[in-house]
Amino acid sequence: MPRKRRNEDLILRRIAYSFRPSRSQRARQSIALGIGDDAALFRPKPGHQTILTCDWFLEGTHFLREKHPPDSVGWKCLARAVSDVAAMGGAPRCFLLSLALPETHTGRWLDLFLGGLRRASRKFQCALAGGDITRRNKILINVTVVGEMRPGSALLRSGARTGDILYVSGRLGEAELGLQIVRRSQGSAIKKNPLTRKHLYPEPRLALAQWLVKKGLPTAMMDLSDGLSSDLPRLCAASAVGALKAKLLVKTFRGLGLTAIGRITRDRELLVLQENGRASHLFPHGWDPFRNKL
Amino acid sequence: MPRKRRNEDLILRRIAYSFRPSRSQRARQSIALGIGDDAALFRPKPGHQTILTCDWFLEGTHFLREKHPPDSVGWKCLARAVSDVAAMGGAPRCFLLSLALPETHTGRWLDLFLGGLRRASRKFQCALAGGDITRRNKILINVTVVGEMRPGSALLRSGARTGDILYVSGRLGEAELGLQIVRRSQGSAIKKNPLTRKHLYPEPRLALAQWLVKKGLPTAMMDLSDGLSSDLPRLCAASAVGALKAKLLVKTFRGLGLTAIGRITRDRELLVLQENGRASHLFPHGWDPFRNKL
Repeated sequence: MPRKRRNEDLILRRIAYSFRPSRSQRARQSIALGIGDDAALFRPKPGHQTILTCDWFLEGTHFLREKHPPDSVGWKCLARAVSDVAAMGGAPRCFLLSLALPETHTGRWLDLFLGGLRRASRKFQCALAGGDITRRNKILINVTVVGEMRPGSALLRSGARTGDILYVSGRLGEAELGLQIVRRSQGSAIKKNPLTRKHLYPEPRLALAQWLVKKGLPTAMMDLSDGLSSDLPRLCAASAVGALKAKLLVKTFRGLGLTAIGRITRDRELLVLQENGRASHLFPHGWDPFRNKL
Repeated sequence: MPRKRRNEDLILRRIAYSFRPSRSQRARQSIALGIGDDAALFRPKPGHQTILTCDWFLEGTHFLREKHPPDSVGWKCLARAVSDVAAMGGAPRCFLLSLALPETHTGRWLDLFLGGLRRASRKFQCALAGGDITRRNKILINVTVVGEMRPGSALLRSGARTGDILYVSGRLGEAELGLQIVRRSQGSAIKKNPLTRKHLYPEPRLALAQWLVKKGLPTAMMDLSDGLSSDLPRLCAASAVGALKAKLLVKTFRGLGLTAIGRITRDRELLVLQENGRASHLFPHGWDPFRNKL
């Protein structure tokens, strides 16, 4: 690997060049001022409010330097944060990138990382608006995504009501299986496996969420980040309800599976219906960074 | 030190409790939805746009776990980011906190850290709106500050014109001296020294910047973060001008020193006038994370 290294100003110039807006982007942009000043300026569409979220993406915690391709790191750090905006029904517009890198990674690794990040940025129509960089022996990433939505239209965790049906999109656990394959694999072969692709290049449910919000169908919505058994209790707590989980029905939206997995209950308990017809308690077995390691 | 430890949900509850809004805050709040959902919602005052900035604050790079009091870490991580909003003439409104902590620091250290952060949050009228936490062997912090300002009123780095006078606020180098004392000191004595206080509890120039913007006095403005010799070239490059540095005049604003240190020149050179009347080139000697260590 060529040992091209850059200092702070050169890295900033490399990033700014990599994310220079096309002419058509400049015409319809909501970023009044992007990279290159002390702060970024953002103007949501008239009648819209600003929606904001931030997400860690850290070497050793969320990805492995020797296993995860740099372009997947770039794609995924943005996709994860965009997914939080999607989960409220918002439209992403721009993002801030905080990046800490070893000096050895300011050349080729950075270029490949920016390639994946730019691909995600175009796919999600979410432009780079600013950020902060520094040097570090581990690769640290934090992404803030800024979007817009109409006041009152956000789908919160707190809106679930007794009798509502619980749906999940996609197939749960596939990305986790993908991670297990990535951990055991060598080289570029990992990019071709459909399961590892779900782990390396996840697709936020932007189209589905915006369609659902437009139709006014759901009462509550959330991004599953730590696993169903950890995240469902959070939705139920926010809504002061319980849930009974039992696989019911599969529908599709543009080829994406939507599975009704249970319903919301008045009693604040989380129960799983067994095959023998009895219900047992659901305990959180999902990701807790203070309990789990990658 | 008591070994109180918390898991992810307990830490989130602790943070939410620590930053619960008072009744008066709830009445005038611009945060439509804060901590506890996938994303935060922000509504700037009518006729205003959103201003955004993010800042790293990392153990070993920006502070030392054994030297910097936890409440100073809390104060400073927010003050630094607020300073970037001030440098454009914006008003901070809310912030997102990304925090990575060792499990040993989820008890007393976290409580003291939140104390300093809350004090800064109240002083700068900048409420906690959301964030992300995870576990890490080093303490990692990233803060995104969100504010508001009238479109067209931002004071950019690119506005400097030939003949403009260059001012700095406060006295340059004092915080750096404070850091040197902190590195050599032991225990709580460091909090009492006026120089270390400038390093531990810096005050963003919010009142000065908003007064300057209101008066329409400056043509360009920036936050000095890496030192004058590194940051002045960035302002000059953005404005396509040069500068001649020569100590001229001291004024004050509410007890804060304002020193005219030079003027903007047409030639794109950065020169320092020596005592013997000759000019020499100014070279960047400020902080470059890819060159310097703390």
